Amino acid sequence: MKKIAILGSTGSIGTQTLEVVETQGDIVVTALAAGSNIKLLEEQTRKFLPKLVCVWEEEKARELAVSIKDLPVRVVFGMEGLIEAATEPSAEIVVTAVVGMIGIRPTIAAMEAGKDIALANKETLVTAGHIIMPLAKKRGVNIFPVDSEHSAIFQCLNGENKKTIHKVLLTASGGPFRGKTREELKAVQVEDALKHPNWSMGRKITIDSSTMVNKGLEVMEAKWLFDVDMDQVEVVVQPKSIIHSMVEFKDGAVMAQLGTPDMKLPIQYALYYPERRFLPGERLDFWSLKEIAFEKPDMVNFPGLSLAYQAGKRGGTLPTVFNAANERAVEKFLSREISYLSITDIIEGAMSGHTVKENPSVEEILEAENAAYEYIESRW
Amino acid sequence: MKKIAILGSTGSIGTQTLEVVETQGDIVVTALAAGSNIKLLEEQTRKFLPKLVCVWEEEKARELAVSIKDLPVRVVFGMEGLIEAATEPSAEIVVTAVVGMIGIRPTIAAMEAGKDIALANKETLVTAGHIIMPLAKKRGVNIFPVDSEHSAIFQCLNGENKKTIHKVLLTASGGPFRGKTREELKAVQVEDALKHPNWSMGRKITIDSSTMVNKGLEVMEAKWLFDVDMDQVEVVVQPKSIIHSMVEFKDGAVMAQLGTPDMKLPIQYALYYPERRFLPGERLDFWSLKEIAFEKPDMVNFPGLSLAYQAGKRGGTLPTVFNAANERAVEKFLSREISYLSITDIIEGAMSGHTVKENPSVEEILEAENAAYEYIESRW
Repeated sequence: MKKIAILGSTGSIGTQTLEVVETQGDIVVTALAAGSNIKLLEEQTRKFLPKLVCVWEEEKARELAVSIKDLPVRVVFGMEGLIEAATEPSAEIVVTAVVGMIGIRPTIAAMEAGKDIALANKETLVTAGHIIMPLAKKRGVNIFPVDSEHSAIFQCLNGENKKTIHKVLLTASGGPFRGKTREELKAVQVEDALKHPNWSMGRKITIDSSTMVNKGLEVMEAKWLFDVDMDQVEVVVQPKSIIHSMVEFKDGAVMAQLGTPDMKLPIQYALYYPERRFLPGERLDFWSLKEIAFEKPDMVNFPGLSLAYQAGKRGGTLPTVFNAANERAVEKFLSREISYLSITDIIEGAMSGHTVKENPSVEEILEAENAAYEYIESRW
Repeated sequence: MKKIAILGSTGSIGTQTLEVVETQGDIVVTALAAGSNIKLLEEQTRKFLPKLVCVWEEEKARELAVSIKDLPVRVVFGMEGLIEAATEPSAEIVVTAVVGMIGIRPTIAAMEAGKDIALANKETLVTAGHIIMPLAKKRGVNIFPVDSEHSAIFQCLNGENKKTIHKVLLTASGGPFRGKTREELKAVQVEDALKHPNWSMGRKITIDSSTMVNKGLEVMEAKWLFDVDMDQVEVVVQPKSIIHSMVEFKDGAVMAQLGTPDMKLPIQYALYYPERRFLPGERLDFWSLKEIAFEKPDMVNFPGLSLAYQAGKRGGTLPTVFNAANERAVEKFLSREISYLSITDIIEGAMSGHTVKENPSVEEILEAENAAYEYIESRW
């Protein structure tokens, strides 16, 4: 029986991971970690009986400990608890599905403990790819991408030599505002931005998809995961999200992975790689699909993507600033403090106000993040 | 240095194989075999200096022997010569690019001699798949498909477990007459049928593409190559021939190989598998491509495909009859003896007039072929 720990078990990826675990029936969950949704976490704990559960907030952890005192499950909290969950001795794979920079330390801790990573936390590679990838090599652990795009690329590379990649073609739906000008985007409200055409995801990532910032983060992740230059990662808009991504090899062959928009596929693939198992769900139907269309990404009206290329090429602490500024800006947009277009204005402002530090340590990454937050608070 | 023999060196696949050899510069050609084009064969012989050349026609072989008497090259002829070329001791891979049933014996001989096969001869698997595939297993030799579709499927299966195939999606351009009714097809002339929209190929295969008989032969080949049932092979019409074929796995993931229509890619892939090397030539351009459209194949107006499914499912000698009848019918069409629609009428007639023999030997396959020829001669 495979043993896994899930960090971020009550979120979209976390709950779908548990669905896969339930369907397959041959994975043991040894640790669960969540932010504050202790109601769902309690349900999960009763169902999967992990050895350890972590709640980010101490008070909620104490509350949960009381409600599950009938179970042989230890409850921990905070960063220390999260790291304990990430390094739970019997787990072989750690699914890192927490959102934000808090994913970095537990991911590193899990890798140091020799565990494979099913990576669903974008920030880890975007901000600390230069630490994570050499560490994976040093410790001989695998990083299995859980994002549908990176999983697609990973699937395209199955059996292939990474050195023969000519370019990575990262597909993008273009989001709900594809084709709109900045003028037209001025009036966008929170409700509009939360309607993603193809994927059902969390709020933050749905906004990030609409601004193309999400695609920008994915480009940076791809650079680290597949050991290519930023310029080797090309974004291809493909509105129906049927092709999850592609790889062009040196011989001109393009390998693609297609499918319905179901995150359980990349999750299951990451958990069982290289095995493929039956996965219940809808299948791609080429007759109803009729056609797949391609467009160039619009980097003018959606500057989030070009700012990401800038950040990824410059490297150092700049991707951290890009990410932190976006995180804060999206919060402000979701709480209706700023307009839609201000999101990328804030990213641009924070990036231009930042002095890049090369090859930053985790501490320096977190400092850069805080500095970006402060800069934004002082300006917006 | 890799060593190869090429059977059918003056045809479309043969000449492109030699282009790949020339570009890469690290393959030695140890044997060449051609039908009757001794002018080109002489050029090839002077350039690549094989140990052995074979000409199908004895008289032409003697002619060639005289013109190249300055070279240390042995000239042989006929089936015996072709088998000698196929088993030339130093060759590791034999490219079987001869057209027609004459490819079967030399392919078997090459496999018996422990050589890998770069298979470009459709008839081998269509008529003798039940002999070839077990033999490959027994002798531990590889069969690398050279057809663009089968190469695409082979590429999609790289690193995968064949047992997890749900279905093979074999793409088809639909040919120059896609969308036409049988009524409209009545008036088709040789010139019309020789215009393939995407691929530049030999005359016979171009006609076969227009009738969908070629796709039918490919479905039967796929069945043998990838160890699937006929019903697991689905034909997807995709008029631009961009997706060369796809595989749907049990988990719902669809892997596809895309590219420009360049036969040198599958040839090079077969010669160097699993290595991918730079291949000069055009690359896929998603911006000028704009879209990929999908259609169901029209089995009513193009009965060649449904007849092939029928033949492939029934098995035994029926695929041989399907193939032989088509071969003869296309000859008659090309020499303007019969109308375009008669091609599939003849196949249907020959199939219904045939008593199937199960699990035929090579001799029985060749007998069934002859019987089909005689039946056709007596009727049309």
